[in-house]
Amino acid sequence: MKALIYKGPRKVEVTEVDDPKIEQPTDVLVKITTTNICGSDLHMYEGRTDVEKGKVLGHENLGEVIEIGDAVRQVRVGDRVCLPFNISCGCCKNCAAGFTSACLVLNPGKVGAAYGYAGMGPYEGGQAEYLRVPYGDFNCLVLPEDAAEKERDYVMLADIFPTGYHATELADLQPGESVVIYGAGPVGLLAAYSAVLKGASKIMVVDRLPDRLDLARQIGAIAIDDSEGSPVDQVLELTQGQGADKGCECVGYQAHDTAGDEHPNMTMNNLVRSVRETGALGVVGVFVPEDPRASDKLEREGQMAFDFGLFWSKGQRMGTGQTNVKAYNRHLCDLIEAGRAKPSFLVSHEIPLDEAPDAYKHFDARDSGWTKVILHP
Amino acid sequence: MKALIYKGPRKVEVTEVDDPKIEQPTDVLVKITTTNICGSDLHMYEGRTDVEKGKVLGHENLGEVIEIGDAVRQVRVGDRVCLPFNISCGCCKNCAAGFTSACLVLNPGKVGAAYGYAGMGPYEGGQAEYLRVPYGDFNCLVLPEDAAEKERDYVMLADIFPTGYHATELADLQPGESVVIYGAGPVGLLAAYSAVLKGASKIMVVDRLPDRLDLARQIGAIAIDDSEGSPVDQVLELTQGQGADKGCECVGYQAHDTAGDEHPNMTMNNLVRSVRETGALGVVGVFVPEDPRASDKLEREGQMAFDFGLFWSKGQRMGTGQTNVKAYNRHLCDLIEAGRAKPSFLVSHEIPLDEAPDAYKHFDARDSGWTKVILHP
Amino acid sequence: MKALIYKGPRKVEVTEVDDPKIEQPTDVLVKITTTNICGSDLHMYEGRTDVEKGKVLGHENLGEVIEIGDAVRQVRVGDRVCLPFNISCGCCKNCAAGFTSACLVLNPGKVGAAYGYAGMGPYEGGQAEYLRVPYGDFNCLVLPEDAAEKERDYVMLADIFPTGYHATELADLQPGESVVIYGAGPVGLLAAYSAVLKGASKIMVVDRLPDRLDLARQIGAIAIDDSEGSPVDQVLELTQGQGADKGCECVGYQAHDTAGDEHPNMTMNNLVRSVRETGALGVVGVFVPEDPRASDKLEREGQMAFDFGLFWSKGQRMGTGQTNVKAYNRHLCDLIEAGRAKPSFLVSHEIPLDEAPDAYKHFDARDSGWTKVILHP
Amino acid sequence: MKALIYKGPRKVEVTEVDDPKIEQPTDVLVKITTTNICGSDLHMYEGRTDVEKGKVLGHENLGEVIEIGDAVRQVRVGDRVCLPFNISCGCCKNCAAGFTSACLVLNPGKVGAAYGYAGMGPYEGGQAEYLRVPYGDFNCLVLPEDAAEKERDYVMLADIFPTGYHATELADLQPGESVVIYGAGPVGLLAAYSAVLKGASKIMVVDRLPDRLDLARQIGAIAIDDSEGSPVDQVLELTQGQGADKGCECVGYQAHDTAGDEHPNMTMNNLVRSVRETGALGVVGVFVPEDPRASDKLEREGQMAFDFGLFWSKGQRMGTGQTNVKAYNRHLCDLIEAGRAKPSFLVSHEIPLDEAPDAYKHFDARDSGWTKVILHP
Repeated sequence: MKALIYKGPRKVEVTEVDDPKIEQPTDVLVKITTTNICGSDLHMYEGRTDVEKGKVLGHENLGEVIEIGDAVRQVRVGDRVCLPFNISCGCCKNCAAGFTSACLVLNPGKVGAAYGYAGMGPYEGGQAEYLRVPYGDFNCLVLPEDAAEKERDYVMLADIFPTGYHATELADLQPGESVVIYGAGPVGLLAAYSAVLKGASKIMVVDRLPDRLDLARQIGAIAIDDSEGSPVDQVLELTQGQGADKGCECVGYQAHDTAGDEHPNMTMNNLVRSVRETGALGVVGVFVPEDPRASDKLEREGQMAFDFGLFWSKGQRMGTGQTNVKAYNRHLCDLIEAGRAKPSFLVSHEIPLDEAPDAYKHFDARDSGWTKVILHP
Repeated sequence: MKALIYKGPRKVEVTEVDDPKIEQPTDVLVKITTTNICGSDLHMYEGRTDVEKGKVLGHENLGEVIEIGDAVRQVRVGDRVCLPFNISCGCCKNCAAGFTSACLVLNPGKVGAAYGYAGMGPYEGGQAEYLRVPYGDFNCLVLPEDAAEKERDYVMLADIFPTGYHATELADLQPGESVVIYGAGPVGLLAAYSAVLKGASKIMVVDRLPDRLDLARQIGAIAIDDSEGSPVDQVLELTQGQGADKGCECVGYQAHDTAGDEHPNMTMNNLVRSVRETGALGVVGVFVPEDPRASDKLEREGQMAFDFGLFWSKGQRMGTGQTNVKAYNRHLCDLIEAGRAKPSFLVSHEIPLDEAPDAYKHFDARDSGWTKVILHP
Repeated sequence: MKALIYKGPRKVEVTEVDDPKIEQPTDVLVKITTTNICGSDLHMYEGRTDVEKGKVLGHENLGEVIEIGDAVRQVRVGDRVCLPFNISCGCCKNCAAGFTSACLVLNPGKVGAAYGYAGMGPYEGGQAEYLRVPYGDFNCLVLPEDAAEKERDYVMLADIFPTGYHATELADLQPGESVVIYGAGPVGLLAAYSAVLKGASKIMVVDRLPDRLDLARQIGAIAIDDSEGSPVDQVLELTQGQGADKGCECVGYQAHDTAGDEHPNMTMNNLVRSVRETGALGVVGVFVPEDPRASDKLEREGQMAFDFGLFWSKGQRMGTGQTNVKAYNRHLCDLIEAGRAKPSFLVSHEIPLDEAPDAYKHFDARDSGWTKVILHP
Repeated sequence: MKALIYKGPRKVEVTEVDDPKIEQPTDVLVKITTTNICGSDLHMYEGRTDVEKGKVLGHENLGEVIEIGDAVRQVRVGDRVCLPFNISCGCCKNCAAGFTSACLVLNPGKVGAAYGYAGMGPYEGGQAEYLRVPYGDFNCLVLPEDAAEKERDYVMLADIFPTGYHATELADLQPGESVVIYGAGPVGLLAAYSAVLKGASKIMVVDRLPDRLDLARQIGAIAIDDSEGSPVDQVLELTQGQGADKGCECVGYQAHDTAGDEHPNMTMNNLVRSVRETGALGVVGVFVPEDPRASDKLEREGQMAFDFGLFWSKGQRMGTGQTNVKAYNRHLCDLIEAGRAKPSFLVSHEIPLDEAPDAYKHFDARDSGWTKVILHP
């Protein structure tokens, strides 16, 4: 089959690889019809990880079931399914407690598995024609009857819609509260969108790319351009000097200033200052335990010069980490089916798999207008 | 001053009474500018309670502070304030735990106090020119700068908006879930509106009055007319036979069938059948511990022939009771100020206090189009 | 193999039946080493259900894995396992949300499955030498190294320890609160024991059998004998007239007065009166949607003359239903392993399977001293 | 009256000062009968704060009401009361939401007020004969009838018992879970004690002072001596390599290694490593937004070289800040009254106020056996 594989820093290629097949009686085989490029694919693309060459990338996958193992009971051939990016067994201590992003079984010796991702197990990605899904009954979200016509929306359930939503959950965002979101990439925009859906009163989104800020405005958020002055000051001014009730971090360790220099602590320290005392922070931007290629000593060791004293004095709380997609995907699916959510608003490009390498290039360069790319194998 | 007083069953009158004055150093005096007639005022109006003759009615009050006691620090003369219908001390075991609807101090020998209400303490109501507010710092919600222009919205914060919202909180309604709401009176409509604000996926509202069902449709809910067939069947059909995820009761013990006969257990038993196993119910319709005037023996003793076996077998949960307004009024106020909520959509009449007796008559008769009446003293 | 089967009202027999075998690749076969008689087995024993004749009873099971299906990955032959009484798929909407007691898959057309139980699917019970466990990875709790020596404690994890604990969870019991528990049978005693473990300040247990009240006292609870006067009055006296903060119902629809007459509403109405305003009730005693053999009309239809008006006026909350054992069994297991919990304190009899019919007779008669019976096949 | 005042670094003195008096109608005057020296008093004692000279110290206070203002209704002369260390108005946005540690009113321009504390408002402390209590109805916990005989226990409700408990709440500690606590000072010991009360399965306490580790063992915790090897390794060994389910930080920014050198990030980074993925951390040790006297640059600016990458990768959560005492003091009081909690187990010295300066010296030096000092004016 055709698949997009990693060849080395800033080098991906669509090529022929072996077809996946049923390996375990609990497996399901899916013919991929839509798969996205994710911002976190860029960490691998840029060579910032130790992902092996030849790995098929792609963890935002949707398709049609074409074969099931002997032990599969709840998914049938012909079902259209969306696949949470985290692969989980459903039975271990973490999965049973709902932390499917920290499955103890599927990535032996580590915690948490995913398709086509550095350090998350031997699973191929879905930027390909076919995908093997382990523990199919547990890991497939069977889509409603309108699956085909809303494929651009439902594919967002694999990762970025639940991840944006997760940011607001980690931040304990309640109806009527104000929230500030750092980052208007796809995840930040869907965090803002989730805040709208949940009834937040004031949603402030910080970024500097005009097309992203425009999208933020379109969904009813207040766009804050941090190239025009301190985002903290702008948030304080919008909140009578008090700060937002809650805050979300949707940027991660590659946060950089307007000059392009990376400061892993930039958004976090701004967030602490932008949120009022007693507030809570949801951090879904990726931070890494070590970053050997970084120039800064702290950064190399995965440490951050964090304003811990201020954070503590304000009595803030913080939740972090990868999203347990299954905690949210059914309800978000129901919102799409009911016509109350349409996360595809941020799709900028819808192209064949063959053109993916070019799309990686543009997306990585944050080229204007390349907000979110959908691929069709 | 002029005030509307209770004179006996189905008899109210606007007349001259003594002006209220500061009695305690913690009191605040408010000049009422807007005050509503509430559905629960009708229980008293109809003579179904033991409210004393001469009592000034009215517990949905908004106005301007004209005088404050010596111990008042956070409310100033000139502030526009909305007053939660429950009066509370802020210090007792229940208030400190957030249950301001069950204050142990302000209604000695009982639990919970309110303005102008049967059995809820010696406090006069606000369908009058002036109102004394005990524990003013605790019981006044100081309104934002746009208070005057949005008075019709902010007055809903005194009772029915928080009460409708409370129904969805007691039902533990989460974004993406479906919900069925029995009753499209003002509280039921604002429960539906709260469900919309919170991101419910499917909101079903059961009633039979066309004007109310129209309002439900206007805010994006699905209107279910129970005069056209079993509401339970209609809910099941709308939910693939599963029932709604959650449910709200916004009718109370005077629920009656299409023939006009009261059945206090009608909505509750329908609710249990309309909601799926593991679901939760929020019950804000009023039920009374005894109803001496009722024809039915169970009803006289405050009992109900409740489908407890089915409720238990489905593993449902239930929350009940009067709303602790202060738990919600700040956040709902922020939503109004931000332009994201406009609960005045259900106001049908805005009239001078003098015309209140006539309005009581129409509202009590459920005359077509009399959804919600606002009075201006 | 030998197994105890239901033969008709008040008639059970240990006899030879076919050995169970692996039917699905996800199955596990367990050699039962300890299995209990549960209070709810008596509903079937007494002929109050429509359980089929020939059914093997027994849903509190512990044993050793002797064979596993091809798809089983996390349970190994030789593991000692305790089996939650509810059998669940782990993947359906309810299981994924943690409501394993309401599995939508394993009891087609109904909700929730169990071993050897009326109306809960075609699964044989474990009062036998061997047991087939569906979805073994999900439904087996693998026990720690001290499993053999603490078998009497660990077997309680199958049902009654989690069920007692569930009562306190449904009642939202917090450290420092007082709680009243109706019923000092095995579940009521373990609800009281759970309350002790959780740091409740005052634990009051209502019953009338002296041996059960003694056990309540032994674990630090206050025993209330309802044959000596109104239990409500006794609770109010112990709580300065306020009522307990929270309450648990561990009796069910066969509640009977001291004269032996059944009153399905007796404990619930007492509970509402015994718990203070704003309190919460956890109801794990079994109530049924219909009881054709009952003498009372309401009871036949599964209805109850419930003090709904008082319940509502007090603003109480209530949770009900069968326990989702998997939500609790790991943590309770950890407490047993750490030596901090020893639920076997209530075991009165430990006998061979062959003597089970006689034990059923004594347990059903509530014969003095027959608190809890453990069987060893 | 006699009072202990701050005179400068490591210099306190008992001297005559003016008697406090009723200043507001909501004030209450208390004759102090018991008052403690708190670990956080040492920050001021050591000259690490900008507390003004002449300030009366002491924020753990208990005594008898001798006078009340005109607006006080719920506290009476003669009541024995324990006073939460945070002084709060009960009415502002934060207080109304339960965050009494972040009162917006009583410390104008800042957030949160306390008795006798640097930067927390103009309030004198209670290491004195008398104390003025603002907003007496809200800020007094009226003690039960056995107040006099259990004064050593009830005084712990002012700060350290709720603070230790708060650590376990911020860490979301559930019954049956394991927990590691860094620091066996009074707060750490009471965090461990709270964990025992809540039914934790395994409680590990890290310190190096033998008398403190002994006290930890006495209450049933596992003592970990970090002078004997990496505390992280010891925790991992005690938890099969997984780490504790939850963790508490009860040391703060003055954490130091066995050589006596301060490392503000030492306990936090150890905590992240000691707690398993998906776990939560409760941080009640004090961290400051700036520390001008510190030798380290990061420390001077209140920053910390925090293992943020690891924290995020493990998907951990964290809650921080001063305790909102009123959220816990009633329930903990009920536990003391019921005889189920006896926090005085850690009292090492009970002396007259006159001897306080000497006690400060010993306590500051962490002299062996000086765990907790109670003063009687």
